[in-house]
Amino acid sequence: MDARAYIEAHREEFLSSLDEWLRIPSISAEPEHHEDVRASADWLADHLRATGFPTVEVWQTPGLPSVFAEWPAADPDAPTVLVYGHHDVQPVDPVEAWETEPFTPTLRGTSLYARGASDDKGQVLFHALGVRAALAASGADAPPVTIKMLIEGEEESGSVHFPDLMRERRDRLDCDTAVISDTTMWSADVPSMCVGMRGVTDVQIDLHGPDRDLHSGSFGGAVPNPLQAMSDLLSALHDDDNHITVPGFYDGVVEATDEERELIARLPFDEKEWLSTAASAATWGEKGYSTLERVWLRPTAEINGMWGGHIGEGRKTIVPASAHAKVSFRLVPGQDPVKVQQGVQEFVEAHTPAGLRAGTDFSGPGTRACASDLSSPTLKAARSAMEQAFGKEVLFTREGGSGPEADIAEILDAPLVFVAVGLDEDRIHAPNEKVEVPLLLKGAESAAHLWRELAERS
Amino acid sequence: MDARAYIEAHREEFLSSLDEWLRIPSISAEPEHHEDVRASADWLADHLRATGFPTVEVWQTPGLPSVFAEWPAADPDAPTVLVYGHHDVQPVDPVEAWETEPFTPTLRGTSLYARGASDDKGQVLFHALGVRAALAASGADAPPVTIKMLIEGEEESGSVHFPDLMRERRDRLDCDTAVISDTTMWSADVPSMCVGMRGVTDVQIDLHGPDRDLHSGSFGGAVPNPLQAMSDLLSALHDDDNHITVPGFYDGVVEATDEERELIARLPFDEKEWLSTAASAATWGEKGYSTLERVWLRPTAEINGMWGGHIGEGRKTIVPASAHAKVSFRLVPGQDPVKVQQGVQEFVEAHTPAGLRAGTDFSGPGTRACASDLSSPTLKAARSAMEQAFGKEVLFTREGGSGPEADIAEILDAPLVFVAVGLDEDRIHAPNEKVEVPLLLKGAESAAHLWRELAERS
Repeated sequence: MDARAYIEAHREEFLSSLDEWLRIPSISAEPEHHEDVRASADWLADHLRATGFPTVEVWQTPGLPSVFAEWPAADPDAPTVLVYGHHDVQPVDPVEAWETEPFTPTLRGTSLYARGASDDKGQVLFHALGVRAALAASGADAPPVTIKMLIEGEEESGSVHFPDLMRERRDRLDCDTAVISDTTMWSADVPSMCVGMRGVTDVQIDLHGPDRDLHSGSFGGAVPNPLQAMSDLLSALHDDDNHITVPGFYDGVVEATDEERELIARLPFDEKEWLSTAASAATWGEKGYSTLERVWLRPTAEINGMWGGHIGEGRKTIVPASAHAKVSFRLVPGQDPVKVQQGVQEFVEAHTPAGLRAGTDFSGPGTRACASDLSSPTLKAARSAMEQAFGKEVLFTREGGSGPEADIAEILDAPLVFVAVGLDEDRIHAPNEKVEVPLLLKGAESAAHLWRELAERS
Repeated sequence: MDARAYIEAHREEFLSSLDEWLRIPSISAEPEHHEDVRASADWLADHLRATGFPTVEVWQTPGLPSVFAEWPAADPDAPTVLVYGHHDVQPVDPVEAWETEPFTPTLRGTSLYARGASDDKGQVLFHALGVRAALAASGADAPPVTIKMLIEGEEESGSVHFPDLMRERRDRLDCDTAVISDTTMWSADVPSMCVGMRGVTDVQIDLHGPDRDLHSGSFGGAVPNPLQAMSDLLSALHDDDNHITVPGFYDGVVEATDEERELIARLPFDEKEWLSTAASAATWGEKGYSTLERVWLRPTAEINGMWGGHIGEGRKTIVPASAHAKVSFRLVPGQDPVKVQQGVQEFVEAHTPAGLRAGTDFSGPGTRACASDLSSPTLKAARSAMEQAFGKEVLFTREGGSGPEADIAEILDAPLVFVAVGLDEDRIHAPNEKVEVPLLLKGAESAAHLWRELAERS
């Protein structure tokens, strides 16, 4: 029985298991649901045992548990892959905006509605189906590659304990490739693979002037105004071509290959529709790049918030004592967050006029970007596996956002491959999250093909 | 008996009257004290009748009353002067910061402590003493000029009904000169006359971008960011020399004369001390002007407040939906607030990038600046009168702030002369307001000399 036939035959069984798991409200950001997150880990461990994984363990952390499973290949020389996903989910507020209960999975047409359906329980669970399909296709007792699964329980609350967990269990997690199943495809009709995510680092900048707000009649125009200085500073962040002027900002940037830019240009991108999704009236950005390239391939500096002086009703004619801004920088492969922070520090100092005092507060060490090597055999295997499942050419995308994936690549010293079937319209993090059941089944099939391809190519 | 001797002889009587008046808590901004403001008007009316003014009237308004008094000169061809001041006072909070009760006048050394002692009851009352001193000096039954007094009851709560009152009673208020006694001198040792006040107009600028905050990973760097655009806009308000770039902003500006700039330069200005008063670490401002010139003679654009996006704890990586700023412009003689507002409107439109929508909200029509004509006989008479009282050269100052005085000049079509003896250290509007009694007596003497000088020079 080939993989696809096996998957079709087990559709109802798969959906019934997913229904059970989705009923567990494993919201990691809400302490009152922490017991549910633990129950979710136990449910998954049981399910993976039933699937046939010889080793299944719930790994405790100072926070919420991850689930680890391992199924060795018959051939001891076969490569090892590690599948990453997460079993915790986002909060459900505003709950009144849900058309059906978030933890009562409901199938309408081909869409399964529930919190976590797409992000990420559906995408974790298709791997259990996929490995059984691979076994059915090969007729063997063990998969063609050693499969490890590491399914986190705190992804939706910042992955605070996850890097430490990986470091502590580094030996058990050793692998040749990490497969990430927590992202999206271009669309249901245009299968694609994510081949990179931007990194991020962010800072709060504070400019302090006079000890107190001053009367603008007595002092205005004769002492430096912190809000004016902050505006000058932030305005200087971009030059006339919207390049970023932070010293050394672009040092080390790995430019996307012509091949990748060409594949991106082939995506059926409708800028008008994108703008309507963005609820924005015009595009903007760095000269020389398309909108998709700006979001995926280029680093950015974005003012996330700004405040100072009188912000209430009416007027108050003052020179404010201080000004504040929060700025985040999306990073691309090759940029070192620590060096970017040093450049920002330098930039702020250089743009602080005499008489003002500047402070910078970086919220953490920042997250590196990550990208797949498009010429690697692993990536080619994954693309081929998806093309077999979908029966179409698979294009490349990236994610403009950032995640813990770069940590996985760095700590495990393994290249990343993104095999995922979420869609932008799945409304992850919002009310009425859903997933497309046919895509979950294609995900399972892609995984089954991938294990075979990786074994054959090794 | 000369004016000074008369004033010395009546010092105790004057202080006893002032003590009575200061005990009335005439706080116009607090409705529970509105009866006190009415009582204060009645007290003053009685006092001016007792002083000898043949006509004394309490003028009702839709708000709180003003007091009008008139004492015609013996000579029907003598000029008419109108004295402006106010009988309402500021609130007293924080009342616990007062060393003695705000409405229990207390003399410590030469300082009389009470709310309203300097701003403005002490300065109104010295005119009653001054006119009696003028009569004593001349031996006549009527003053050498026709003296009108118009003492407002809502100055500390925005003078909302005062312009209308002046327009309605325009005929009764007809005068050749308006004498304003509601400002300060340089210092007790350096007598000076204020010869101008800046005007003001202010605006709230709003920039609207996407309908909602956007995820900076998905949209950052590819749609216009309202906070970035607001920073660019506000940064463009000043050029490299800190001149203001609003179109037509400097149109019509009447430059101060060399004589005035020279007299300003002769003031014993200690920039270090001024900076410590400003609680600021450095000066800043328009190229080509000294600090005092920047505050007194030059128009300014000051950002009073600014906000948008995420302004709480922690980080939120968004492209904010909107950005907001409050900006006020101090104006100098010759600038038309309405034209400045048109220029600001034009400036905002020109600096709003494609994809954003701008709004401007001016809080009112704005206030014109006012300035005395330094070459006018009236001003020369006033300066000479003060020099006789103080026995010293009188220098010129201006006020960087703004008040209803420009309305007085405009509605009454009369030049303004500021004869006032308050000091910056009188703590008007703050706890422990005080006035220097010797200066109040010099004020009375200045007034007595001024009436004589004006009659002689007419």
